[in-house]
Amino acid sequence: MKAFVTGASGFIGSNLVDRLLAEGHSVVGYDNLTTGQVQFLAGARGWSTFRMIKGDLLDTATLHQAMEGSEIVFHLAANADVRFGTQHPRKDLEQNTIATYNVLEAMRANGVKRIAFSSTGSVYGEPEIFPTPENAPFPVQTSLYGASKIAGESLIAAYCVGFGFTGHVFRFVSILGERYTHGHVFDFYRQLNADPTRIRVLGNGTQRKSYLYVQDCIDAILTVVGRDSAGVEIYNLGADEYCNVNQSLGWICEALNVDPQREYTGGDRGWIGDSPFIFLDTAKIRTLGWTNKLTIHQGVLKTLDYLRANPWVFEQRSVS
Amino acid sequence: MKAFVTGASGFIGSNLVDRLLAEGHSVVGYDNLTTGQVQFLAGARGWSTFRMIKGDLLDTATLHQAMEGSEIVFHLAANADVRFGTQHPRKDLEQNTIATYNVLEAMRANGVKRIAFSSTGSVYGEPEIFPTPENAPFPVQTSLYGASKIAGESLIAAYCVGFGFTGHVFRFVSILGERYTHGHVFDFYRQLNADPTRIRVLGNGTQRKSYLYVQDCIDAILTVVGRDSAGVEIYNLGADEYCNVNQSLGWICEALNVDPQREYTGGDRGWIGDSPFIFLDTAKIRTLGWTNKLTIHQGVLKTLDYLRANPWVFEQRSVS
Repeated sequence: MKAFVTGASGFIGSNLVDRLLAEGHSVVGYDNLTTGQVQFLAGARGWSTFRMIKGDLLDTATLHQAMEGSEIVFHLAANADVRFGTQHPRKDLEQNTIATYNVLEAMRANGVKRIAFSSTGSVYGEPEIFPTPENAPFPVQTSLYGASKIAGESLIAAYCVGFGFTGHVFRFVSILGERYTHGHVFDFYRQLNADPTRIRVLGNGTQRKSYLYVQDCIDAILTVVGRDSAGVEIYNLGADEYCNVNQSLGWICEALNVDPQREYTGGDRGWIGDSPFIFLDTAKIRTLGWTNKLTIHQGVLKTLDYLRANPWVFEQRSVS
Repeated sequence: MKAFVTGASGFIGSNLVDRLLAEGHSVVGYDNLTTGQVQFLAGARGWSTFRMIKGDLLDTATLHQAMEGSEIVFHLAANADVRFGTQHPRKDLEQNTIATYNVLEAMRANGVKRIAFSSTGSVYGEPEIFPTPENAPFPVQTSLYGASKIAGESLIAAYCVGFGFTGHVFRFVSILGERYTHGHVFDFYRQLNADPTRIRVLGNGTQRKSYLYVQDCIDAILTVVGRDSAGVEIYNLGADEYCNVNQSLGWICEALNVDPQREYTGGDRGWIGDSPFIFLDTAKIRTLGWTNKLTIHQGVLKTLDYLRANPWVFEQRSVS
């Protein structure tokens, strides 16, 4: 297939691009390179079936032109900075909500009718049911990021009904693995690398989260996209387990052979709007035969391996 | 209180303005007058406590300035044209999603922290539970209008968490009554006025909908806004009954003493994305002591009375 990947030089996007190319598909990557890294596409550039376009999703003329001839859009580009949403509310509106609208309109202009979309478990707000299924009670949003992702999901669903699109919406837990350049493992490793004797932990360390290894995440996406379907389908993606921040920190310290003094910022949330417990019910995607191959512990170790082998990622502009 | 009402010259907005003024509040009305009618504010203009500002919600400079000194925002302005959403998808994005963001940012700039918002039962998509409660299973959107309203609701909820706002979100059924200038009663009356011998009905006439009389709707809003609360609260607003299109048409024909030949466009939906059954569970708002005073039948007759007494509304630019 002829795939168009937004956020192609990001963490998940670049891993997806590599997989699509390896499986024989042609790929047009689209990225504004504000948080993505050109180095992530070093391998992809070796394929004649890959073309990279530097462009912003708010630049609709470039976007419309770039998408010409594509058959499916993997819309992964987003402002993924959940934590600092209240410092720049416009970012989530523009880079997530309006950007998704622009992608859908570019699809309409180009006759592309199939979209896979990276949403988030954050759309469940603070759910009361764990693990949380896709049809959990109508949630109340607690973050600008979650609000912008539910706006994106809803636009896609409406385009499926109104314009005959096919939509694959994936609600991710936090993703781990190679090219991971934000989040708690990144933050902990960076701190311990600078000073192995102490570590600052947001919240009280008891926040429970589920994680998924990036290749497992891509397996799941490709499992769904490879099937015949119509209209919009929504899938939770995650491991069938969770861990708390202290456990994860324990694994990291063990792997690095350090025993830092832990300093907690306090409270049961890492930041305002942080959900203290994210654990998604993934029974639906598992009925398609998908399963995660790596545990959370293994995913954390893979991430550490990558960060240790790639110190350059800490020198780039990145979001923690 | 010092109220700021967006969509002040619209159907519900102008009725709310009149009520707020009559109850002794001061009101700044804000409207771009694209679908609102200046005539609806003829009474309001007689109050020294009323000030009208013609402005667009996309004009943030005018909006920020207009809101200065307000204590609460009633955000009723919207593109309420559900039916033709797919003909102009940008309208719902701009006039609903982005407009709501602009209102929230204007509030933040002006230190206003309380907002009442007109959402819609359309956010439930095609629910499986009737009457549909506020915490129904996580819905899938079926219209661009619904998508834009859930985007607005979600933004408000996120601002409540992130910025300490208080939000009152109301999910309306269709509203009837004085100054009603779109929807099925308007459409049927207009058709029968032009030719009482025939009428064109969208769908097969079996679509079931709930309706609420506009003064009952405003009673409910003021009941909620008059209470102490914090964070976001969501209320369904509707009658505790529903009717189908054929029933409503029967009431209208009886009142007008006509017996037109009915021509059905067919199908169980009026248009793509139309929900064939909207009936909201209003137990939550009723626990506050609110109840609708008028039945749907009475609301339809009140609407007819208004339309018969005000033929000028058919000469204005309006949305059917």
